[in-house]
Amino acid sequence: MTAAIIGAGVIGAGWGARFALMGWDVSVFDPSPGARERFEAVYASASESLPALFEHALPEPGEITWCDSIEAAVQHARWIQESVPEQLAMKQEVYKSIQAHCRDDAIVSSSTSGFKPSELQQGASRPEQIMVAHPFNPVYLLPLAELVGNEETIKQAAPIIEEIGMYPLHVRQEIDAHIADRFLEAVWREALWLVNDGVATTEEIDNAIRYGFGIRWAQMGLFETYRLAGGDAGMAHFIKQFGPALKWPWTKLMDVPDLTPELVQQIADQSDAQSGHYSIRELERIRDDNLVSMLRALKPRQYGAGALLNKTDQRLINEAAVYHDEQLVTVHRVIPIDWMDYNAHMNESRYGQVFSDAADTVLRLAGADETYVASGGSFFTVDCHIQYRNETLPGETVRCLTRIAPLDGKKLKLSHEMRRASDETLLASADQLLVHVDMSTRKSSIPPPHIASALSQLQAGAS
Amino acid sequence: MTAAIIGAGVIGAGWGARFALMGWDVSVFDPSPGARERFEAVYASASESLPALFEHALPEPGEITWCDSIEAAVQHARWIQESVPEQLAMKQEVYKSIQAHCRDDAIVSSSTSGFKPSELQQGASRPEQIMVAHPFNPVYLLPLAELVGNEETIKQAAPIIEEIGMYPLHVRQEIDAHIADRFLEAVWREALWLVNDGVATTEEIDNAIRYGFGIRWAQMGLFETYRLAGGDAGMAHFIKQFGPALKWPWTKLMDVPDLTPELVQQIADQSDAQSGHYSIRELERIRDDNLVSMLRALKPRQYGAGALLNKTDQRLINEAAVYHDEQLVTVHRVIPIDWMDYNAHMNESRYGQVFSDAADTVLRLAGADETYVASGGSFFTVDCHIQYRNETLPGETVRCLTRIAPLDGKKLKLSHEMRRASDETLLASADQLLVHVDMSTRKSSIPPPHIASALSQLQAGAS
Repeated sequence: MTAAIIGAGVIGAGWGARFALMGWDVSVFDPSPGARERFEAVYASASESLPALFEHALPEPGEITWCDSIEAAVQHARWIQESVPEQLAMKQEVYKSIQAHCRDDAIVSSSTSGFKPSELQQGASRPEQIMVAHPFNPVYLLPLAELVGNEETIKQAAPIIEEIGMYPLHVRQEIDAHIADRFLEAVWREALWLVNDGVATTEEIDNAIRYGFGIRWAQMGLFETYRLAGGDAGMAHFIKQFGPALKWPWTKLMDVPDLTPELVQQIADQSDAQSGHYSIRELERIRDDNLVSMLRALKPRQYGAGALLNKTDQRLINEAAVYHDEQLVTVHRVIPIDWMDYNAHMNESRYGQVFSDAADTVLRLAGADETYVASGGSFFTVDCHIQYRNETLPGETVRCLTRIAPLDGKKLKLSHEMRRASDETLLASADQLLVHVDMSTRKSSIPPPHIASALSQLQAGAS
Repeated sequence: MTAAIIGAGVIGAGWGARFALMGWDVSVFDPSPGARERFEAVYASASESLPALFEHALPEPGEITWCDSIEAAVQHARWIQESVPEQLAMKQEVYKSIQAHCRDDAIVSSSTSGFKPSELQQGASRPEQIMVAHPFNPVYLLPLAELVGNEETIKQAAPIIEEIGMYPLHVRQEIDAHIADRFLEAVWREALWLVNDGVATTEEIDNAIRYGFGIRWAQMGLFETYRLAGGDAGMAHFIKQFGPALKWPWTKLMDVPDLTPELVQQIADQSDAQSGHYSIRELERIRDDNLVSMLRALKPRQYGAGALLNKTDQRLINEAAVYHDEQLVTVHRVIPIDWMDYNAHMNESRYGQVFSDAADTVLRLAGADETYVASGGSFFTVDCHIQYRNETLPGETVRCLTRIAPLDGKKLKLSHEMRRASDETLLASADQLLVHVDMSTRKSSIPPPHIASALSQLQAGAS
């Protein structure tokens, strides 16, 4: 599958990087000077972050081809993402060139944050082919894409958006600025007043957001948070209580402050005082590491963006046993930033994590998976001996190869080797002893015969 | 130190739980029926979550005393937190009773989200004693407290807010709704329009927030995020670009929609469809587990709320060696929710985390801390043998006791026992072999004599 990227600024390049890292071939057209270097910088950042969101290795990245015309970029593309500047006439011209050369069944999608599909479609040869897929920066990490356009086009687009790990939010009616930017707009307006009136600096405003409702909204949003505030009395009760506040005096400050040179300078100065000790590149790296860490934190909770990531992980799992050099592959993954310690390498406990996950793979393949646990049996580790051979760094891809000793009564012995995928360097080895447990008594017990025989077959698969 | 809680609804109880869990005695006055049971439910939730934010055990919780008068509650209190309903006359009456009985140097602080200190202070005997400390639900987890009032009072209040692990945001001018609620108000107004106009459901709006800008704001807020969007061209350039959007059509939707019974019912129905399969108690538990996990994820990044938590952790570290039953205590902590696996107990790799942290404590006490690492030396673990004896559950407090073998050249051997603090049950033991490393070559090397002698002294301290 090929995606065409028309306009490769920070948004277009973010789309391109996400498509490529999820295995799509990508053809890029952007004639502006320095576009290729900027694209490559975004791709480098995305390569550091996106694969680390998952507990399984992503497919091989697709090929990226730099094209010198729209025609060359779009001719074989299934998905065409337009991210040129927010000028309606320019976008309409671009669609003319695209539609002159693209497949009839291609999706032509705009990253616009402001325009409605009906505006974009004016004068197009096949208007229904053009829709909006509005993403959020960094596109390679944040999963939201607001989809607006013809019902039939969106029906085809949504599964592709899911395939590249995003959440397709189908906006029911076209409306200026779609949904999320309306909120950003409202908050931005209020923030300008607060700075303008000297109530708070840019840093104080950021702290008011990130130490309070920001972290609440990162997982539940607005309405579910208020449902909680309403408590057992219910949402309708809450709205009745909170409703009058909408008429309180502060709702009168709804004009837009004049962006005088003084106000612009004041904000720029405050922002320098707040963040000027970091370069933009450093701030981007900080942001991406923060986002990866928080998104990963939501995965075990199976909530919000964490639940979305888990869906992609499910797709990345090999259902059948995979062998490498005649050994069972039980882990194949990238080492994420949150596994690093102050020595700037993977913390020793995370080697244990890899071997724990390796044991889980063996058990899953043998039928002792989460469903089996729910039915009343499991294996608990009782002994693990790890030998650390080499440092492992964040961003490295590793593979764990496992030998299964025959099951002896209640006991299962596993021997693991963790190797760097790029050069097979041995990073650590471990001997692990597991015992089968009856989950109702949480005492050791003999596993059922089908588990024992599945384990033997797994072992026999390796030679 | 004693904190008095006047009004123990969800906000007052949240304050009370936070003060008590951070070691303050708490006296509570709330004559409304069922107040005590509601307080205890909030305290139970807080006990499950707040201690798990830290890598070190909190001090012993303070004593909670239920009082039958304002007089009894406030007489010895250093901090008095008023959280009665948002009715100005009622609050002013409460301050009269408080000030008739409290210490002159007590801080009398209101949780009000709407009123200004000048309004609260009207008719008070010592007006300057009354200020606003506006928190965010759940008060026991979210660190933001907006402080508004007289300069001198806030100067005394801020260190106390920091002591209980919160961030004192000094609001420079009193203003209706302080800072953060003005943003919530603006977003709420916009969200009501979107539901009213059928553009999006409550769930779609929540998804538009939590899959996009919500997770961005949780760590950087608004202005730092936009600084990034502006890129190297700078913040002033960004504002000039983004400024015109403020005049675009969607800024006209700034009225407040009428809260007709139909709109209220529509929102309540959509919220039921979105979240009605969970009880409020279940949603609270989900929220708290999510918040704990995300807040903890920001700690290694040393950013946003994670940096605040690390400051509290620093205060919780014992600078000198601590012994228990004549053994060196190297870890004393609560097991957090993010260490749990699908067997509903602590994952085996997190035992390794505890033993890794135990080794770090030994090294820190011996002078081989992060500063030493920065200067070019460190110890790497080369071998670890863990024996798992008993399950460990989230919320349990554990202690790790460590024996240090004499340093043999480059090698250091540590033997750890991890025990449940409540009953000394042995949960796991480990033998760990570390090697001293020259960080410039990342090869083994002989440690300097002062490290070796500090290790001997540590070992001699235990008998």
